[in-house]
Amino acid sequence: MGQYYMLMNHPSGEQIPNFKDITAARQRIAGCIRTTPVLSDPRFNQLLGCELWLKCENLQRTGAFKFRGASNAIARLNETGQGGDVATHSSGNHGAALALAASTNNRRSFIVMPEDSVKTKVEAVTNYGGEIIFCNPTQQDRENGLAELIERGCIPIPPYEHADIICGQGTATIELAEQCGEIDVVLTPVGGGGLISGSAIAANALIPNARVIGAEPEGASDTAVSLRQGKRVDHFPVNTIADGLRAIVGVLNFEIIQANVNSVLTVSESGIIDAMALVWQHFRMLIEPSSATVIAAIKEHPEVFEGQRVAAIVSGGNVDIARLPFKP
Amino acid sequence: MGQYYMLMNHPSGEQIPNFKDITAARQRIAGCIRTTPVLSDPRFNQLLGCELWLKCENLQRTGAFKFRGASNAIARLNETGQGGDVATHSSGNHGAALALAASTNNRRSFIVMPEDSVKTKVEAVTNYGGEIIFCNPTQQDRENGLAELIERGCIPIPPYEHADIICGQGTATIELAEQCGEIDVVLTPVGGGGLISGSAIAANALIPNARVIGAEPEGASDTAVSLRQGKRVDHFPVNTIADGLRAIVGVLNFEIIQANVNSVLTVSESGIIDAMALVWQHFRMLIEPSSATVIAAIKEHPEVFEGQRVAAIVSGGNVDIARLPFKP
Repeated sequence: MGQYYMLMNHPSGEQIPNFKDITAARQRIAGCIRTTPVLSDPRFNQLLGCELWLKCENLQRTGAFKFRGASNAIARLNETGQGGDVATHSSGNHGAALALAASTNNRRSFIVMPEDSVKTKVEAVTNYGGEIIFCNPTQQDRENGLAELIERGCIPIPPYEHADIICGQGTATIELAEQCGEIDVVLTPVGGGGLISGSAIAANALIPNARVIGAEPEGASDTAVSLRQGKRVDHFPVNTIADGLRAIVGVLNFEIIQANVNSVLTVSESGIIDAMALVWQHFRMLIEPSSATVIAAIKEHPEVFEGQRVAAIVSGGNVDIARLPFKP
Repeated sequence: MGQYYMLMNHPSGEQIPNFKDITAARQRIAGCIRTTPVLSDPRFNQLLGCELWLKCENLQRTGAFKFRGASNAIARLNETGQGGDVATHSSGNHGAALALAASTNNRRSFIVMPEDSVKTKVEAVTNYGGEIIFCNPTQQDRENGLAELIERGCIPIPPYEHADIICGQGTATIELAEQCGEIDVVLTPVGGGGLISGSAIAANALIPNARVIGAEPEGASDTAVSLRQGKRVDHFPVNTIADGLRAIVGVLNFEIIQANVNSVLTVSESGIIDAMALVWQHFRMLIEPSSATVIAAIKEHPEVFEGQRVAAIVSGGNVDIARLPFKP
């Protein structure tokens, strides 16, 4: 993916980051990200049959964990003296995160977005100072759009497949380990795999007895299928309401997941929608469909979580309120 | 108000609680309430011209600070060996809070609610096991409804005018003082006055240099008018979207406010609605109109807050999503 990868190769010389890289990322972004709260609810726990802690990245700046990775990537560019505009493709959350991280560092940002992106996310990118280039909602068109921007001199900041991004996302799990005490399971959504790979590296270092489990919509279960086949699939017919999880898992991310993640569970569309409603009822938080996969996973695979102490990362809260899929 | 007041007179023999009573309440309810997070946002601070910390009682159990007071009142009944059903009148949040506090202590609860109550709040009372008696939306009808329940043997748990309630609400400010470090202003909504009187007693003990300021809708500004006149008004033509702030300030509460609160600012209806939209944009939280008064106060009275470190209590998040007054 061009210049950024060449110049930004990980200092260790390897692309797969380790826990030290995540702690370095945490220090680097401490001044700009929010330490997000963890919330638990006795009645909800009773309903689920486990002790659940929600790590509320929906309350992170820009409304999603993505701001961690984007902030780390921009800070690394600053450290290595690489000025200039940045670009990415994104269904929204990484785009908004990059736009804010860039504008607070006096950089322009260009975001290639599928034209069917969630309205709230489109507005957020613009509000944070990002410039949007709309494209058809296919992986190929997203990549073509980004390639053009790179040709024009922009530095690409990939949404998940890069050590700096993975390290930034992993910082949430360092907080989790500090906030929750003992944890039996760390549970995160799986899209491109940035969040779960960073989470797994951090969890394996800090809470090595905890299992790390991913949640994926059946309609975007490329990672679960890849794990079963022992080989990453690079095509998958995507069909899910979880707009943040439609990407195919990254090559680097899949490698980390294979080595560090216990399992990836799949969840139904109706399970995702029911989970959004449950979180609204029990926590008065609107969470986006991608985030709701973690709750759906507990509901649809209760035997995996029964009696366990589960820390689940709620990845984002950027929903179109006018088009909620459940009746509040 | 009958039995509860007679039997539950404050142990000190006085009805006005002191800081020690609030610390006792905190210990009493520690096991059932949530320590709510405080959130701040650099861009929002820039917009407002002050450093604002939101104390997110919208993320308290039952979606409002009211669960603090209700939990304390029920725990005190338990301590003093008073079994039996409890009752109150409420626009919703105190009712839901009492319903949950009662049901987790194996008590039945009866809630007199105006028939124009917010749907989300009605459902919450029922979900938490409360039994609703609807009435006309007037203070007189609410009180008549409660009087009937008392006659039937229920113990009344008043929504704001009681030391146990005030002490419970005051516990949020103990947390604030621990979470925020230096604070120049503690800012809370004002309805019946339970929250601000508890907050003021706690703030004056813990952060005596901080000013304590209330926010009240112009259309329910009985407290501001009462303070100006030096005498509590007991009638006020109420007209505001802030359904949680329509009550007239309590006698006991007004006494505490006169002695401990620096000022009560009034805000417009459009200011309240704009503030709800701003909090959604900057924090991805839906807060109820009553809560939004604190943000509206900063926007409409910027000279009072300029450059200050402001800790504002966001009182609740129980909104009807289908009827949001702003376009998200």
